[in-house]
Amino acid sequence: MGLNEEQKEFQKVAFDFATREMAPNMAEWDQKELFPVDAMRKAAQLGFGGVYVQTDVGGSGLSRLDTSVIFEALATGCTSTTAYISIHNMCVWMIDTFGNEEQRHTFCPPLCTMEKFASYCLTEPGGGSDAASLLTSAKRQGDHYILNGSKAFISGGGESDIYVVMCRTGGPGPKGISCIVVEKGTPGLSFGKKEKKVGWNSQPTRAVIFEDCAVPVTNRIGNEGQGFLIAMKGLNGGRINVASCSLGAAHASVILTRDHLNVRKQFGEPLSSNQYLQFKLADMATRLVASRLMIRNAAVALEENREDAVALCSMAKLFATDECFAICNQALQMHGGYGYLKDYAVQQYVRDSRVHQILEGSNEVMRMLISRSLLQE
Amino acid sequence: MGLNEEQKEFQKVAFDFATREMAPNMAEWDQKELFPVDAMRKAAQLGFGGVYVQTDVGGSGLSRLDTSVIFEALATGCTSTTAYISIHNMCVWMIDTFGNEEQRHTFCPPLCTMEKFASYCLTEPGGGSDAASLLTSAKRQGDHYILNGSKAFISGGGESDIYVVMCRTGGPGPKGISCIVVEKGTPGLSFGKKEKKVGWNSQPTRAVIFEDCAVPVTNRIGNEGQGFLIAMKGLNGGRINVASCSLGAAHASVILTRDHLNVRKQFGEPLSSNQYLQFKLADMATRLVASRLMIRNAAVALEENREDAVALCSMAKLFATDECFAICNQALQMHGGYGYLKDYAVQQYVRDSRVHQILEGSNEVMRMLISRSLLQE
Amino acid sequence: MGLNEEQKEFQKVAFDFATREMAPNMAEWDQKELFPVDAMRKAAQLGFGGVYVQTDVGGSGLSRLDTSVIFEALATGCTSTTAYISIHNMCVWMIDTFGNEEQRHTFCPPLCTMEKFASYCLTEPGGGSDAASLLTSAKRQGDHYILNGSKAFISGGGESDIYVVMCRTGGPGPKGISCIVVEKGTPGLSFGKKEKKVGWNSQPTRAVIFEDCAVPVTNRIGNEGQGFLIAMKGLNGGRINVASCSLGAAHASVILTRDHLNVRKQFGEPLSSNQYLQFKLADMATRLVASRLMIRNAAVALEENREDAVALCSMAKLFATDECFAICNQALQMHGGYGYLKDYAVQQYVRDSRVHQILEGSNEVMRMLISRSLLQE
Amino acid sequence: MGLNEEQKEFQKVAFDFATREMAPNMAEWDQKELFPVDAMRKAAQLGFGGVYVQTDVGGSGLSRLDTSVIFEALATGCTSTTAYISIHNMCVWMIDTFGNEEQRHTFCPPLCTMEKFASYCLTEPGGGSDAASLLTSAKRQGDHYILNGSKAFISGGGESDIYVVMCRTGGPGPKGISCIVVEKGTPGLSFGKKEKKVGWNSQPTRAVIFEDCAVPVTNRIGNEGQGFLIAMKGLNGGRINVASCSLGAAHASVILTRDHLNVRKQFGEPLSSNQYLQFKLADMATRLVASRLMIRNAAVALEENREDAVALCSMAKLFATDECFAICNQALQMHGGYGYLKDYAVQQYVRDSRVHQILEGSNEVMRMLISRSLLQE
Repeated sequence: MGLNEEQKEFQKVAFDFATREMAPNMAEWDQKELFPVDAMRKAAQLGFGGVYVQTDVGGSGLSRLDTSVIFEALATGCTSTTAYISIHNMCVWMIDTFGNEEQRHTFCPPLCTMEKFASYCLTEPGGGSDAASLLTSAKRQGDHYILNGSKAFISGGGESDIYVVMCRTGGPGPKGISCIVVEKGTPGLSFGKKEKKVGWNSQPTRAVIFEDCAVPVTNRIGNEGQGFLIAMKGLNGGRINVASCSLGAAHASVILTRDHLNVRKQFGEPLSSNQYLQFKLADMATRLVASRLMIRNAAVALEENREDAVALCSMAKLFATDECFAICNQALQMHGGYGYLKDYAVQQYVRDSRVHQILEGSNEVMRMLISRSLLQE
Repeated sequence: MGLNEEQKEFQKVAFDFATREMAPNMAEWDQKELFPVDAMRKAAQLGFGGVYVQTDVGGSGLSRLDTSVIFEALATGCTSTTAYISIHNMCVWMIDTFGNEEQRHTFCPPLCTMEKFASYCLTEPGGGSDAASLLTSAKRQGDHYILNGSKAFISGGGESDIYVVMCRTGGPGPKGISCIVVEKGTPGLSFGKKEKKVGWNSQPTRAVIFEDCAVPVTNRIGNEGQGFLIAMKGLNGGRINVASCSLGAAHASVILTRDHLNVRKQFGEPLSSNQYLQFKLADMATRLVASRLMIRNAAVALEENREDAVALCSMAKLFATDECFAICNQALQMHGGYGYLKDYAVQQYVRDSRVHQILEGSNEVMRMLISRSLLQE
Repeated sequence: MGLNEEQKEFQKVAFDFATREMAPNMAEWDQKELFPVDAMRKAAQLGFGGVYVQTDVGGSGLSRLDTSVIFEALATGCTSTTAYISIHNMCVWMIDTFGNEEQRHTFCPPLCTMEKFASYCLTEPGGGSDAASLLTSAKRQGDHYILNGSKAFISGGGESDIYVVMCRTGGPGPKGISCIVVEKGTPGLSFGKKEKKVGWNSQPTRAVIFEDCAVPVTNRIGNEGQGFLIAMKGLNGGRINVASCSLGAAHASVILTRDHLNVRKQFGEPLSSNQYLQFKLADMATRLVASRLMIRNAAVALEENREDAVALCSMAKLFATDECFAICNQALQMHGGYGYLKDYAVQQYVRDSRVHQILEGSNEVMRMLISRSLLQE
Repeated sequence: MGLNEEQKEFQKVAFDFATREMAPNMAEWDQKELFPVDAMRKAAQLGFGGVYVQTDVGGSGLSRLDTSVIFEALATGCTSTTAYISIHNMCVWMIDTFGNEEQRHTFCPPLCTMEKFASYCLTEPGGGSDAASLLTSAKRQGDHYILNGSKAFISGGGESDIYVVMCRTGGPGPKGISCIVVEKGTPGLSFGKKEKKVGWNSQPTRAVIFEDCAVPVTNRIGNEGQGFLIAMKGLNGGRINVASCSLGAAHASVILTRDHLNVRKQFGEPLSSNQYLQFKLADMATRLVASRLMIRNAAVALEENREDAVALCSMAKLFATDECFAICNQALQMHGGYGYLKDYAVQQYVRDSRVHQILEGSNEVMRMLISRSLLQE
C-alpha cells in the first residue's frame, strides 16, 4: 500500500522481531505483568528506541510514516509493549526536538538504546485533558525547581528512569506550563501503587508523586511557558503511534480469525463456509484498510507540517482506535468460546487496544479538536 | 415497570443481597478466581438455588419473569457468580421438569439449597451448537451406560457435584441423544485444566472428560432420544437468565456512570455538563429499558408456553446481550482512564458480560433460530 | 404480544382498513400529493378520528395502548396519512382534555367524524423546540385576541379547519404561552406555499400566518399561561403515536422483505437462502419487536400517569423512530434495485418514516429530555 | 490531500463547473426529471465525457485518481447527473480499451464530446449480479447477431444512443458472454416505461428490450466469450466512480450542515454551540476523509494494475457508499425540519446517493468479493 522498498524492509524487520521475540511471550508478559526490559533493549538495537529521533543522538532519523509502519508491525507481537515503546519514543522525540544541545546529547543516547526508559507525565488525578487545571507546581528556587503535585496513569511509572513532566511554573492556563525532566532517584520523587488494569499489563502504570522534589533548572526543556505546546506537539505523533498499535492488534486479529474460520468446523463444514462470517470478515478487513490509510495519511501530513495535520492526527486516532477495537472485539466473537480464553491471543488484543480509545486524549477530546477545526474554518 | 408487589419484594431481597453479600467481594472473587460457595449457599437460603423449580423438591416455584427479575438484581452484585447460579438453576429445572419422581426427590433438594452444585454439559470441543455432531457416547451395558468423550467450556466443571450430560445413546442426529446425570466421584469422570478467561472468573471452567465412565441407567433423565429436546428446553430459560445477567451488569454500569459524571470535574465543570455525555447516557438508558422489555416479554411468553416463545427468547438473548455489552463498554469509556482500572467495577461488568454474546447459543446461532422462524412463517 | 381480545379486534379492523382502503392508494396519494379526505372520513367511521377522546363528544374512549395498536396497523396501509390522523387525534384530545364543556361539545364532534380536520401549531420558523423563543403573539383586545406571527411545518396547514395554536399572551418563557383555537376563514389567517417534501406527501405542509387575526377569547383552551403545558401533554401522546406510525412502516417493510427474499432468485436459489440476508432479517425483526415493546410500555405508563411516563415516551419515540427507519432502509437495501423504484412500496415507508426522527421533538430533543430525567434522579 | 498541482487544477475546474452550471439546476432536474443534455455537453467540453479515455479518440487521457477527483467535485453540483456521466465514461473506456481501432475511432469521439450518450447493459430482471444466469441471447446469423432478451435498470435507457450490452453468444456461465454495441434506432430495440425512482431523477432509467434485434458482428467488442471479463473490468473503475459521486454528495452535505449549524439559532445560541452536534459533525468529517482515502487508494491501485486492485475497489465502494450515505442522512437530521424539504439540497444528496449502495454490484456483492479474496489468500 504505497510503501517504498526501504519501508518494506523496516516493516519486515519489525514483523520478524514481533514474531520471534514478542508474540511467543505476550501472554506471559500479560499474565505475570512483566515489563520486558530485555526484549525492549533488543528492539532498540534494531533502532526502535528512537525511531523518529535524529541520528546524531542515537536515533534512527526516520519519518512519521516509517514510525507508524514499524509500530503497527511490532504491535502484532505485543500491543501493550509496543504502546509503551511508542510513548518512550514520543518522550525522546520531545527532548530531541525541544531540548538544547546539551540536553539532547545527555538524555537521548541512553534512551535510544533503551538503557534508560522514559515516561510522559501530563495527566493529573483531577482532570484528564484539561490543561488549564494542571496543578503540579514547579517553583523556581535558585537554580532548581521545587516540584509538588502528582500525575496519574503514568505508563512506565516506577520503572522508568526519565520522567518528562508538565508542571506549572507560571500563572493559570496553558501559558503557565513548563516541561521539566525529572530523573528517577531524585529526592522527593515517589510512586503510587502499581495499578491493576484490564490490559496493558506488560507496562506498569503508577501515579508519580512530587513532594518538594528539587530538579535543576537545566532540566527544563524549552522555555518557561512552552510546556503545554511541547506536550501537545508530542501528542500529535503520540496519537499516530498509539493508533498504529491498535492497527497492529486489529491486523493480527483479522489474520487469527481468518485462520480460525478456515480450520474450525461446525455442522460438518469449516466456519468459513458461513456467508455471515465471510461478510463480517470482509467488513473487518475493509475497516482495517481504512484505519491504516487514515493513520498513514496523518503521518505524512504531520511530517510535512501541513496546516491540517493536527485535525488529521485527531481523526486518525479517533477513527482507527474505535474501528480497530471493534475489529478485535468482532474477531473475539468469531472465535466463539475460544475467544474468551487466555490461551488464545485474540482476547489480549481486545484488552490491550481498549485503552487506546481513552488515552493520549480520549476519543471524546478528539471529536472536540476536530469539530473546533471544522467550525473555525 | 409492570412488576406486582410480590415481584418488587423479590427484587428488593435480591438487590439487598447483591449489595451486601456480593458487590463488596466481586473484585476479589474475580482477581483471585474464587468460586464463592458460601455466598451462593446464602443466596440459596433466600430461594435462589431453584427459583423456577417446584416447591415439593425445595424450589421456590416462581415464574420465569420472577426469575429474570431476581437474576437481574443479583447480577448487579456479581455478574459472573449470578451467571453460574443461573446455569445451576437451569440444570435443577431440567431434572425437576423431565425427571421422574425419584430423580426429582433425590437430586433437586440438595441442589436447591446449593449444598450441591450442578453443571450443564452440552458443548463439545469439536462443535459449539451442532447437535448432529455430538460425539460423547453412552453405550448401554446392563443397567449402566458407559460414557466416553469430552465436554468443553463447562461452567462449574471440576467443582460441581452433578453433571447433566447430553450424550449419544442412539444413531446420528438429535434423536440419538439422551440426557444423563453423572455424579462427581464416578470412576472415569475427570476434568481438564482450569481455563484462564477474560472474565467469569468467579466460576471455574473446565473440560469434563469421560473415559469408560459407568453411570446407572436410572440416572437418565427422560427417555432415550429425548436429550436434545431437554437440552433445548433448558436453554430457552437459560437464554433469558443469561440475558438477565447482562441486564444487571448494564444497569449497574449506567448507575456508576451517572454518578461518575456527576462527581468528576473537568474544565471546572462536572462531566455531566457535557451535552455529548448526557446524550450518550440517554442512549444507554434507552437501550437498557429496551433490553429489559425484551427479556421480560420473552419470560412471559415462555411461561405461557406461547408458540413464538422460542423466537422471543432468542431475540431477547441476542438483543439484550449485544446491547448490554455495548452499554457496559460505553460506560467504561465514560469513566475515562479510571474505567480501565480494576479498582473500578465497570470494567468487570464489561469483561463478565462479554461472554454472554457467545454462550448458551452464540448470537450468530440466535440469528439463525430467529430467521428460521421468520422464513417458515 | 399481550393484547386482549378487544385489542386484537381493533387491530384486525385497523389492519383490514389499511389493507383495503389505504394500501392500494398509498402510492398515488404520495405521487399526486393528495390529501385523502374521503378515506380519512371512512376511517373516522370506524372510530379512528378521536381514538382516545371521550365518548360523550364522539370519541372512541380508548386507551393509549389501544391507540398505538390502531395507528401501527393503519400505518402499514399508508404511513403518511396515518401520521396526519394521529396529529389530528392529538389535537382533538387536547381540546377534549383541557377545553371546557362548551368547547368540547362545539369542537370535538365534527373532528371525531373528520367532517373537520385539525392542525397542531407550535413550531415557528425561528426555532424548533424552543418554547422560550416562541414569538407568535396574542394581544387581548376586548373579548378577542389579536394574533400576529407565523408557524412553520404545519401538517394539514391550509386544508385543516381547526388550528390549535400556541401563542404568547404573557411575558417571556413557557409561562407566557396560551393555547388558542383558530378556525379556517378567520380574517388575518393565511397560509404559506405548499412545501415539497421527501415524503409525507399525502398531507400538506404549510406555514400558517397570522396578521392581526382576531379570535374570540372563548376559543382559548385552558387558562392563560397554560398553553405550553397543554402543548407538551399533547406531545407525550403524539410521540407514542408517531412512533407507532414508524412501527407500522417497519412492520410492513419486514413482511415485504421476507416475501421478496422468498420469491426472488439469484444464482439459482431464492435470496432467502443467503445466510447474510437471513441474519439481517433476524436483526430487523428483533429490533421491530423491541420497538413495539418500547412503545406499548410507554403507552401504558402514560395511561397510568406514571411518574416516569414522560421519560418513557421520549425513549420510545427516540428508539422506535430511529430503529424503524433503519429497518425500512435495510429493507430497501434487501430489495436491491427494486427497492429504489416507486412501484415498490418499501421506498415509501423509508421516505415517510424518515421525518419521524425529526418532528414532535427531534430525537436530539428526546435525548435531552431523557438525560435530564436521569441526571436529576 | 496529496494531490499534485495539475490535479488541483482539474479539481478546481470541476468544482467551478459544479457550482456554476449544475448546483443551481439540480433541484429542477430532479423534480422535473430532466436529463440535462446541454449541461453534460458543456461538461464534455471540459474533457469530462471521456476522462480516462485515450486522447487519440477524443478522451482526456487522465488517470483513475484524476477521474475520481473530478467526479467527486462534479457530484457536489448534482450527484445524479454526475453518476450518469460516470457510467457514460465507463462505457467509453470499455470501447476504448477492448475495441479494435475501427471501433475506437467510430464510437469514442462522439461519446467523448457527449454528442452521443452511452448506457451499460448488464443487469437483467431475473438476477442482479449473477452472470451465470444471464439470459439475453445473441445468436450468430451470417454477419449479424440476433439479440433477444431484456435488461433492467438501465441508466440512460431510452435516451442513450449507444448501448454496451452483455449477451450470451455461447454456453452457460461467464465464458459464454460477449459484449456487443447496439445503436439506438436498430430495429428490434425498444424500451420499457420510464421508472419512477426515489432519486437519480436527472437520468432516465428504463428496461432495454431486444426482440430479434439484428446487430452487425463488427459491433462486438473483444472476442466472443470475453464479455463478462470486459463488463467486470469496466465495473472496477465504475465502482470507484460511483463511490466518488457519493463522496461529492457527502462533502457537500457536510459543508451545508456546518453552515446551517453556524447560522441557525435555537435557545438563543447558534446550533453549532451544541456539543452533541459538534461531535457528530466531527464524526461525519472523519468518515468523509476515510471514504476519500479509500477511494483514492483504490484508484491508484487500479491504475497501477496491482494484484489487490479488485479487492481494494470493492472495499472502497462498500465503505464509501455506506459511510457517505450515512453522512448525508445525518446531515439531513441536523437540518431539522428543513432537511426534509425539497427547497434544501441536503435531502437530494440523501436520495441520490442511496442507490449507490445497491448498484454496480450491491454492497452485499462487494462483501462477497472481498471475503473471497481474503479466504483464498
